[in-house]
Amino acid sequence: MNAETIQARVQDLRRRLPQLRVAGLILTQPADVTYLTAFFGHDAWAFVTKNAVYLITDSRYIEQAEKECPRARLVLRQGPITAAAGKLVNKLKSIKKIAVDNAVSVAAHNALRKHLNIPLKTVDAPLATARSIKDRTETAAIRTAAGIAAKALAKAKSFFKPGVTEIELAGRLDMEMRRLASRNAFETIVAFGPNASRPHHQPGRRKLGKTDTILIDFGAVHKGYCCDITRCFAIGRPSAAYRRAYGILERAQAAAIAITKPGAKLAEVDAAARAVIRDSGLPVYGHGSGHGIGLDVHESPFLKQDTQDRLQTGQILTIEPGIYVPGKFGIRLEDDILIANTGRRILTKNCPHEALSI
Amino acid sequence: MNAETIQARVQDLRRRLPQLRVAGLILTQPADVTYLTAFFGHDAWAFVTKNAVYLITDSRYIEQAEKECPRARLVLRQGPITAAAGKLVNKLKSIKKIAVDNAVSVAAHNALRKHLNIPLKTVDAPLATARSIKDRTETAAIRTAAGIAAKALAKAKSFFKPGVTEIELAGRLDMEMRRLASRNAFETIVAFGPNASRPHHQPGRRKLGKTDTILIDFGAVHKGYCCDITRCFAIGRPSAAYRRAYGILERAQAAAIAITKPGAKLAEVDAAARAVIRDSGLPVYGHGSGHGIGLDVHESPFLKQDTQDRLQTGQILTIEPGIYVPGKFGIRLEDDILIANTGRRILTKNCPHEALSI
Repeated sequence: MNAETIQARVQDLRRRLPQLRVAGLILTQPADVTYLTAFFGHDAWAFVTKNAVYLITDSRYIEQAEKECPRARLVLRQGPITAAAGKLVNKLKSIKKIAVDNAVSVAAHNALRKHLNIPLKTVDAPLATARSIKDRTETAAIRTAAGIAAKALAKAKSFFKPGVTEIELAGRLDMEMRRLASRNAFETIVAFGPNASRPHHQPGRRKLGKTDTILIDFGAVHKGYCCDITRCFAIGRPSAAYRRAYGILERAQAAAIAITKPGAKLAEVDAAARAVIRDSGLPVYGHGSGHGIGLDVHESPFLKQDTQDRLQTGQILTIEPGIYVPGKFGIRLEDDILIANTGRRILTKNCPHEALSI
Repeated sequence: MNAETIQARVQDLRRRLPQLRVAGLILTQPADVTYLTAFFGHDAWAFVTKNAVYLITDSRYIEQAEKECPRARLVLRQGPITAAAGKLVNKLKSIKKIAVDNAVSVAAHNALRKHLNIPLKTVDAPLATARSIKDRTETAAIRTAAGIAAKALAKAKSFFKPGVTEIELAGRLDMEMRRLASRNAFETIVAFGPNASRPHHQPGRRKLGKTDTILIDFGAVHKGYCCDITRCFAIGRPSAAYRRAYGILERAQAAAIAITKPGAKLAEVDAAARAVIRDSGLPVYGHGSGHGIGLDVHESPFLKQDTQDRLQTGQILTIEPGIYVPGKFGIRLEDDILIANTGRRILTKNCPHEALSI
């Protein structure tokens, strides 16, 4: 993130302060703070006014903040972050009213209000829309993350051997991402056989059988940006039910991907994947069909039914339908899609779908 | 966590509902939910009344919840968790007022209030004290986690070779924990040379030199319980300044550990470590001197100056002073201490302090 990008993001937010009827905005969520300051540490808040961006951090991170955020005004706190933020705002006499994002905890909100001499309002996800539209650098970072993930998974396949545990295989995959100077974007899911019917299974001590199935849901991080990929593999010949479901799932995912483009309704993309599965008579998954990715692994836009929102050029999101048959098997396919002017780009195409070919 | 333990925890909380003047309490924080239900998934809330414990979860976790929480009443949500919680509470006609923990976000609190037909109050950390006192099973789990961490670190030392990067070494250590059927409790910190002066350094591509220093801050998880350990290592003969500081740090940590016992003031334990470093003329660290560990890696009690609280039998906490000299080096030593009736037990003694002996 170069200085001009950060500056443009801050200016964009500043232009919206009058609409919010406040003279300053406190951002409490790590990805929002990173987006506006290029700071990658934790436990920090940003405070944006017409004239400055303040970063409130503590001694554990101050050296990092000095390096990463040459343009932010650093505020080194000793006590609670709410007290430091209150003190900072109170000192700025021209600031008569501020807002804080409503992802802040009730406890922190109450404490902040107590420390402030001026009114405090809350705003909902003030950067969600801006963050959902990726610029070239962000797109490149996610593309690189997807490339790293694909390479790491290809390497980790050498550990797809009978006897390996879910937890060890997850570790091997994470290690391959580290070797590529990356790290896992979230806790890697590795599920064998029927364990995969739990969409968020936590890897355990189950060993891979000689004839078995594997579901892996993982992501790499590059320059702070995440990818998110799910692939399925069969060791030996899988059951007829599995093979049939896999074919249907591929069609379901393709149906959703095919209608992604600028202006497409999120609810329609979500419905497209479900319809294929429903029509086949298999159980329709209960989770969303996909979500935006970026500095957070789950961010706007969210594919779901109860929204009128539409896809916009520059958004990057996952498409991840699944078919879960408790006690039998679970499968999910997840790819990362850039919404381009002229349709879409699949950023994860270097990571082949291959459940039935091992 | 057996059924009796869960039941006793729930009963203890129930006894406190009249004091809180509510007929039910919603817990929104993952570790609180786990503590009361044995559910290890995410995105779930627990609701405790005089008669029942409800677990509100979604389709991704329902199969896991059925297995892990046979005594909880499972509520499968389709839409937002706040809507499901509101609907559940509204159905229970005998419930006239409830509370939610104040770690909930302002957004979720507002939404929950909107969905409820009855008053909602907030309470501060309703389980912090109870969770800080570990029973035998919890102590055994943390002891096992510490044993796993010690073993994993001993194995990872074979990768302490010139040329290895911070990020790869972190991956190797994480992998060793996986091989021991565990996983890292938080993002492993590996910092070489001057990088270690940033207490929360994120591992990067810096390569280990032939004469260099290493700081590793990491933890393993066993049955959901975390340990948290920091060790320093010198490759080749470290500078005189490093050697002197290391000796002072060992004395600082020992001074704090020596006064831990039931009834000891947290502020005095915190001060004991700082005093040794201050008296030596070296810079005194800005972070706390330690924190409780359990289902969360940071939980009550917190060693700091502005508290009158005292240590209690059964608490387990870290003692982790550090000495940071920007541009030169950083060192920290962190051990996990059980406050026992008759003083203390060091749970991390199988993980030797050895910066100067490699």
